[in-house]
Amino acid sequence: MTTVDRIYNFSAGPAVLPLPVLEQIQRDLLSLPGVGMSILEISHRSSAFESILAQAEADIRTLANVPTDYRVLFLQGGASLQFSMVPMNLLPAGATADYIDGGSWADKAIAEARKVGRVNVAASTRAEGYSRLPRQSELQLSADAAYVHMTSNNTIEGTEYKQLPDVGGVPLVSDTSSHMFSGPIDVGRHALIYAGAQKNMGPAGVTVVIIRDDLLQRAAEKKASLPTMLNYAVYAENRSLYNTPPVFTVYALGLVMKWLIAEGGLPAIGSRNDRKAAKLYAEIDRTGFYRGTAFAPDRSRMNVTFRLATGELERQFVAESEAAGLDGLKGHRAVGGMRASIYNAFPEDGVAALVDFMRHFESRHG
Amino acid sequence: MTTVDRIYNFSAGPAVLPLPVLEQIQRDLLSLPGVGMSILEISHRSSAFESILAQAEADIRTLANVPTDYRVLFLQGGASLQFSMVPMNLLPAGATADYIDGGSWADKAIAEARKVGRVNVAASTRAEGYSRLPRQSELQLSADAAYVHMTSNNTIEGTEYKQLPDVGGVPLVSDTSSHMFSGPIDVGRHALIYAGAQKNMGPAGVTVVIIRDDLLQRAAEKKASLPTMLNYAVYAENRSLYNTPPVFTVYALGLVMKWLIAEGGLPAIGSRNDRKAAKLYAEIDRTGFYRGTAFAPDRSRMNVTFRLATGELERQFVAESEAAGLDGLKGHRAVGGMRASIYNAFPEDGVAALVDFMRHFESRHG
Repeated sequence: MTTVDRIYNFSAGPAVLPLPVLEQIQRDLLSLPGVGMSILEISHRSSAFESILAQAEADIRTLANVPTDYRVLFLQGGASLQFSMVPMNLLPAGATADYIDGGSWADKAIAEARKVGRVNVAASTRAEGYSRLPRQSELQLSADAAYVHMTSNNTIEGTEYKQLPDVGGVPLVSDTSSHMFSGPIDVGRHALIYAGAQKNMGPAGVTVVIIRDDLLQRAAEKKASLPTMLNYAVYAENRSLYNTPPVFTVYALGLVMKWLIAEGGLPAIGSRNDRKAAKLYAEIDRTGFYRGTAFAPDRSRMNVTFRLATGELERQFVAESEAAGLDGLKGHRAVGGMRASIYNAFPEDGVAALVDFMRHFESRHG
Repeated sequence: MTTVDRIYNFSAGPAVLPLPVLEQIQRDLLSLPGVGMSILEISHRSSAFESILAQAEADIRTLANVPTDYRVLFLQGGASLQFSMVPMNLLPAGATADYIDGGSWADKAIAEARKVGRVNVAASTRAEGYSRLPRQSELQLSADAAYVHMTSNNTIEGTEYKQLPDVGGVPLVSDTSSHMFSGPIDVGRHALIYAGAQKNMGPAGVTVVIIRDDLLQRAAEKKASLPTMLNYAVYAENRSLYNTPPVFTVYALGLVMKWLIAEGGLPAIGSRNDRKAAKLYAEIDRTGFYRGTAFAPDRSRMNVTFRLATGELERQFVAESEAAGLDGLKGHRAVGGMRASIYNAFPEDGVAALVDFMRHFESRHG
């Protein structure tokens, strides 16, 4: 294998993957050991794939200590399709779902849920540009909600829940796409967790859903009316093999799970992520030349958003950082400025390189 | 690159891919030339991916001579999700859709459409085990159908339309999943074509939809009610980039399209497929030891189904063929017996190897 030039990839997703995972995919691409076919060619009904799928599920269970009364499902369509599937499966006619509106993606989830049934926005920080998360004291929860929906990390605005909101006994549904498995997660406090893979778990094209058995019952009751491909119960009963799953993407996700376990699991990766984020935020706060856009206590460890004094300086920052091999630092147009996404697989030396660049940039422009 | 042992893969899908495509994927897996990141890591908003997506679309247009008033869309969820999306987008309240029930997958499409609106089964060969396609004279089309749905190749039963049915001016919707681009296709006679990629177009995880502009109008009218991720108009307006597409799978599909063009396009691949199928059917028909299960004029060039005299002989055939490096010949449980799927990328020498094996098997057991 020749040496390959790779740059630092700060993309918000699809995002950087662990190099050992890429190398294993490359090595086995023409023929899986002992199979004689590429992972891109094998039947989803083959024993080779059945074992890849079962192992990916088992490793997710190990990593997140998933209780036995939860199913782990593999779907397609990303978090955006979950915005519809959650209410289609879990919101009975006449009932109300509570939504915590803490970011742009929560807002999209609300819009889709409203097409399905009654929605109560329990709290919103939209008027503040989603620069902070709604506080516990602000939540106006319904008396008898079918579920409460939240977005646990906001990719665009750079905020992240450090503690789950208290929603009493109501099922908590969380979109964890952009910080899934970035540290320990208490699955048992959720009723349903969903995450597109393409930030922390693998390539784009597969969505992981972890759902408690009692919610599957609600889905099962809708079999006669709901499209089969949108029914959680169908995925659970068929172990995600009702139709052809995205075979390669599940395989790649499985390799990332193996890598996470080898790195020490979620506590270890969480400590590393804390360290990476702390280093970057410290630089942002050092002199005032840079300005973090998120309310400090809500800052995300995954998506670090910051601005400079003028649009001109920000354009220069983007152009010069790109030239220096730091790719994908331009922020989302909704927030502007810069965003450094530093997911699990983003290396610590890449954070160091960005901090170095920021110092030099400040010394030349400050 | 070391020599890799690869076997003959007769899987019905996911299925064999062209070796040069696999080799290119392998070569560039750690870092796309000029990009510095893996295809598994690049943002779907990057110029690198935008150009991959645009090129895949352009190559599909070139291959199939797609008229300018059709959009080419890339979705997820497979043909099974299309079973729901087609009626959700195209069947207005109170209207009727005609379905030609010529195989197991058509039957599933009908079940999903019935959840959405009124369905008229225009003809069915279910009572004959779908061993043949409904004839033109059998079609009982509605006076004013919203569309007519057909399955143009039946993966399970091994039948294939050689001529499209005449449905007058009614929009024709066709599930072409298991023979897409196996030969020339007259896009202009269809209103909508859909195909899961994992048989003839690429790895599992992407679905291609080719839709005529006037049908997009029906979809656009449903924006307020239909889930955003299930609306064809959303995909068309956002050039399949409303949310994160399955980046790698689109890339791999694009490489297969390039391979098809290099092989001489659809007429050339069609001739090769004719040759491969003719050789195999000739062997099936040679002595009566093997028996084709599909009505001869409707035989598929992609999925060749046949039986032997007894279940015991069939089990032996499967076991011995597998031992001889011919994988995936066991038929679908609905039909029994054997199925040889010989898609575009299946090599002619693999067909020769199967024919040789069949002769030897017959000489030992006949």
